This record gives sequence, structure tokens and C-alpha cells, in this order.
Amino acid sequence: MDAGAPNHASAAAQQAECPSSLCMRLAETLPLDAGDALAGFQLAYQMYGELNADKSNAILVCHALTGDQHVANEHPVTGKPGWWSLMVGPGRPVDTDRYCVICANVLAGCMGSTGPASKNPATGGPYALDLPVITIRDMVRAQARLIDELGIEKLFAVMGGSMGGMQVLQWAASYPERVFAAIPIATAARHTSQNIGFNEVGRQAVMADPDWCGGQYLAEGKSPRKGLAVARMAAHITYLSESALHTKFGRHLQDREALTFGFDADFQIESYLRHQGMTFVERFDANSYLYLTRAMDYFDLGKDYGGRLAEAFRGSSSRFCVISFTSDWLFPTSENRSIVHSLNASGANVSFVEIDSDRGHDSFLLDEPELFRTVSGFLRGAARVRGFAA
Amino acid sequence: MDAGAPNHASAAAQQAECPSSLCMRLAETLPLDAGDALAGFQLAYQMYGELNADKSNAILVCHALTGDQHVANEHPVTGKPGWWSLMVGPGRPVDTDRYCVICANVLAGCMGSTGPASKNPATGGPYALDLPVITIRDMVRAQARLIDELGIEKLFAVMGGSMGGMQVLQWAASYPERVFAAIPIATAARHTSQNIGFNEVGRQAVMADPDWCGGQYLAEGKSPRKGLAVARMAAHITYLSESALHTKFGRHLQDREALTFGFDADFQIESYLRHQGMTFVERFDANSYLYLTRAMDYFDLGKDYGGRLAEAFRGSSSRFCVISFTSDWLFPTSENRSIVHSLNASGANVSFVEIDSDRGHDSFLLDEPELFRTVSGFLRGAARVRGFAA
Repeated sequence: MDAGAPNHASAAAQQAECPSSLCMRLAETLPLDAGDALAGFQLAYQMYGELNADKSNAILVCHALTGDQHVANEHPVTGKPGWWSLMVGPGRPVDTDRYCVICANVLAGCMGSTGPASKNPATGGPYALDLPVITIRDMVRAQARLIDELGIEKLFAVMGGSMGGMQVLQWAASYPERVFAAIPIATAARHTSQNIGFNEVGRQAVMADPDWCGGQYLAEGKSPRKGLAVARMAAHITYLSESALHTKFGRHLQDREALTFGFDADFQIESYLRHQGMTFVERFDANSYLYLTRAMDYFDLGKDYGGRLAEAFRGSSSRFCVISFTSDWLFPTSENRSIVHSLNASGANVSFVEIDSDRGHDSFLLDEPELFRTVSGFLRGAARVRGFAA
Repeated sequence: MDAGAPNHASAAAQQAECPSSLCMRLAETLPLDAGDALAGFQLAYQMYGELNADKSNAILVCHALTGDQHVANEHPVTGKPGWWSLMVGPGRPVDTDRYCVICANVLAGCMGSTGPASKNPATGGPYALDLPVITIRDMVRAQARLIDELGIEKLFAVMGGSMGGMQVLQWAASYPERVFAAIPIATAARHTSQNIGFNEVGRQAVMADPDWCGGQYLAEGKSPRKGLAVARMAAHITYLSESALHTKFGRHLQDREALTFGFDADFQIESYLRHQGMTFVERFDANSYLYLTRAMDYFDLGKDYGGRLAEAFRGSSSRFCVISFTSDWLFPTSENRSIVHSLNASGANVSFVEIDSDRGHDSFLLDEPELFRTVSGFLRGAARVRGFAA
């Protein structure tokens, strides 16, 4: 697959050539919210489990900012288990013996879908910043074409956390007739000022790196590794709770008995963050980071409906299960609850669970039994209504 | 003053030559926690009001990370009012018609006190990273020498917020007989894992800037402006609450009617943070930022007393007024309350006020009437006990 992908000697481009995913490549034009259109695009995706005869058992998983399509298989770059392998798989809450799970790398991503590292047909070089800014709705529009191609009329469920949850909400708003059930987790219907601020810090860190080269680092044979690592470090703190950090690291020193009175990583938290930064740049493209954070910042679903979020879901027959975590300060319960209020106001069928966890925003990725019980129970109930064995 | 200060054509060095502060220069050796010693050092400081005849009315103000000695006068670099001009001045809560207020730029600072931009007598060039790592206790040790020089035996009060509050606690622990009253505000007796993490992000942002030159930017005629700006942007978010950001900026656009689908500062919060970053580098030295954040990280007052914070205050006759703010998530009420618990356990005279404010950590710098009432009332009561007219 993917023979037409860009061929640069960079981590990003190697990933774009990664042979481990399915790939949908379309020559058709994809209209974008920015007003431009993509003249052809591709989505790299993974499938787990089997579609049933009437294609009524498909679950679309939407990934978060730094996730990708490798939900439940070993990651081809890092060798680690898929990012949601606790949630998705045979006998898991999203049971691939029963459901067919699909996950596509988002548009503007860097794991094989069309993104800033992909070849710009107009120039033959990488798009870099010539890729139009992509929105959450654009991502979903592309995913809908994939679902078309797979011959699936109606998804049994769409689910995801964080930026993935934004896509879930957009799916429910844009294609209510194609979404039987929706599970937005640890998300928001609009990005807050604080979150835009943190994203802007990350972008400025990338753009401050001279090896970013005004976005042209692939063409220049460079990589803004230091800037991207700083961006990741800042973001990573926001994914955890203060209490999780305290429990995990406290003020413990890293491989030393005493403070060194220097600027090395004396504390475990410093060492941990540096490691997070360094490993991230091995698997992620810096321009993708700019585009995806921008997509989150721009997300304001209610604004597309005259400022009334409830209007986004008016008349929807989808069933919703909204999930938040007590210690998540990036996408706090208040944001998730306002989604629930709007769903209630629109007359939608909605349940809401706030899960007690001290592990912050990242809780949705972790071993949280109540999360698993909530998801499996909701899906089982929905499957009964949808009419296949639970 | 300050004729012996380093003479480099940089913002930091110009500030070190700033003629607008008093200066104490000592040829004596200052022992440091790092094990090294400074062979001579200077502190630049400001005084407001008059010392009374028995020098019993002196209040030492300790400044925070990015503050300086210009508490209540126009800042010589920015032209803005002093950072605590709402708190300190004639008729203000800290009334300079009654008290003599002293504030010194901390050791490792960049406004005239000995810091990484100062001349290293051993080389004739700037210290840069050859300055030993400075601790909060080192800062206080140097301040105590200044108080000696001014002939003040016992300070009427020591007060400050954030890193300034750390110094207040250190004063109370190191020199209990010299502190009549102590007002630590929005602070902690030890820096948390999360806060070390944010500081480390800032340091990595500075050190990732090639113009940091391994710390030798002054000698190289450069300045890591971009890195320092990113550090400031990240830190600035932590000084505000989510609710303050929401109220002040929301998702409002900056001088435009619609999203531009690009990476300019579309949102006011982006424009604000960029401005904060850019103005900060005009007045602050990047290496000072490294040293001062490190001093905060290293602060763990209880650790110096066998892990029992109460021992730090054992037998103290100082009167304490601990103040926190409800929306401060950087130095939350819980951290301040644990100081109060230790003071109680040590049998100290302590009052504690948690002030309801939605403006986050920066509340201590802002127009917060309850803060002013608390401070003026506490000082008035203490002055009566101390025996001068309230």
C-alpha cells in the first residue's frame, strides 16, 4: 500500500509509508471548511473483527491528538501495544468477537493519512504549511467517505476520547442518521481558552525551533526535534492530575541520592517528561502537531448552530453515553456536563457517567474498570436495541 | 552605583547596570547550600518609608520568580508601576507612612543583584552557568546580610507571595529571632511534582534555543529570546485560573471577524500569551530564569528538618498570617493549609485566610480587597503588640 506516499528520509515520511495499515486513496475532491479543497486524499486505517452480513456491527473509534489508527495492534513504530488495547479486542469492552472496529488516522495526521508531510500534487514536495488548515468536521467528512467505501450505511457506534470525542460529537451532529450510538469521552463541545493557550505554547515551541524552517523542514532534511519535545512535555503535564504526579513521582530523585545542584534531571518528574518528549519526536510529525492542535482550537460545535449546541443534536435518534473523569482538568466534568445539558435540551437519549479517578485526562487510556464497565454495558444495551446478539 | 557590574550589550546586563536601585556590595564570602561560596556579592534593593528610631518598623518584601525590587516605584525598564504598588505605599495596606519597606532583588536575579549575568571575578566574563545553583536559603542568607548592614536587628515583618512566600518561610525557619511577623502568601513549603514539571518545561524551552549557546549567550552576543518567551507563555497560563481565562478571553477572536484558517494568533488568548512572552524577554535574563526556577524546585523546607515541617518552626515566637486563594491551582489552598498545620503543630501563633477569588495564582498581585484588608489588619494588630502606633 501507500506507494504514492511522500518519500523523504524523515521519521514522519517513513511513517507515512508504513505498510502495516489498510489504506483508502480517493482521487475525488474533498471540500474543506477552510474553503479550499483537497484534490484527492488518503486515509490509513485499521480494522479489527468482522463486519456482519448486514454491516450493522461497525464501531468507529476516533483517536486523540497524538494517537493513531493502531488501536489494538502492536504499534509499527514504537513496538508498543495499541493505545486502546485494554478497551478494544477479543473479550474486551469493545469486543472484536462481536463488533467490527475501524479506526482511521485523522486527516492532517502523520501515520499514513493525508497530512502536512504528504506529497502535495501541485508541487511534488511535501505539503508542509500549504496543506489547508483542517477542522474536526473535515476529519469527520473524510471518515464518512471511508465508511461509504466500506459499504456501511449506519455505524453501530462512534467512540473516542479527547480530540476523538470531538469527532464523535461532530459525527452525531453531521451524520445523525449514520450514528446509532455515540460515546464521547473526556471531551468538550468547544475548546476552552486555557486549552487553546496550552496548544499555542506547544505550537510556539515548535515554531521557535530553527530546524522547523518555516515548516519546510522535510524539504530541508531537518526536524524540529527540540521544539516538538518541549511541546510534548508541556502537553503531557496537562494530561495528568497533580495528585497522579504526586503519587507517581512526588519529589523523588532520579538515580541519585541527593540533589546535584545543577540543571540535569534531578527529579523523576523531570526525567519522565524529558523521556516523553524524546520518544514522542520519534513517532510524530511536527507540522501534524500544529495542524491537529489547530483543529482542536477551532472546534466549537455550538457556533456552527447559531451558538446553541442543542441545535446540533436536534431530532437526533442516536443514543449517547457521555463519560468524564473527576480529576481531568483539561476536559473537566463541567465541559462534558454541558454536552449532556445540550443533549437533554435537544431531547436526545443520553446517559452520563462521571468516573472517579485520580489519574487526570489520561484516565480514558488507562486501566479504569468503571470506564470499561460503562462502555461494555452501554454497548450491550445498544446492541439489543439495534437487534444483534449482546 | 553598580559601577563594577558586568558591561555587556544585552538587556540583562543593561538591567544589571540600572542606576535606579540602592546597592549593597560585600567583599566577604557568602557560603552556599551547593557547597561552593560566592567570593563577594551584591544585592540591589529599594527602600520605601523611613526607619523609625529603634529600627523596629522594617518590613522585608520578598519577590516572586519574575518580580524584582521595584515593589512600589515605576519600573526602570518597563515604565510600569511597581508590581505591588497596590499593596505597598502611603496609605496602602503596607503603609509606607508607618513602615519602612525593603525589597532586594534575589540572589541569582537579573536586576542588579549577583546573578548568572554578573561578572565572575575568576574569569572577568559573566558567570553564566558557573554561578553555583542558588537555593531559597541562599537568597535569604544574603538578605540577612543586607538587614545586618542596615542595622536592623529584628524585622517587623517579612512578606511575599509564591517564591516570595518560600523566602518568608525560610526566614521564619532560619532566623526566627529576627522575624516578628511573617506573611507567606500563595506559596508552599515544598515545590510539587507538577510545579517542578512546569519549571522543567520552561528550562527545556530556554535550553532548546540555539541562541542560549550552552548558557554563554552573553559572551556570544546572543539571547535565547524565543525559548524564554515560550517558557514565559507556558508559565503564564499556570498563573491564571481557567475561569479567569474564560472570563477574560473566552474564545474571542483578536482583531478579526472570523477564523483565518492559519497559524496566526486568531484568538485573544494566543495574542495575549505571545505578548506576555515577548515583553518578558525585554526585562529578564534567561539564565536567571533557569536559576530561579531551580531554586523553587529545590525548596523543601521540611526536608531540612528531618522531614517534619513543624520542626522548622519549633519554638518560634513569630506571628504568622498564611493566605491562599481559592482558584490558585499552582499553589493551591491545600499546600498553604499544610503550612498552617505544621505551624499549629509547632505551637506557633498563626492565622489563616483563604480568599475567594477566581483569578488564580496571580490574585496576590491584583486588586483583591480581602487580601488588602487581611494584610493591613494583621499588620495593625502586630504593630500594637510590637509597640508602635497602629
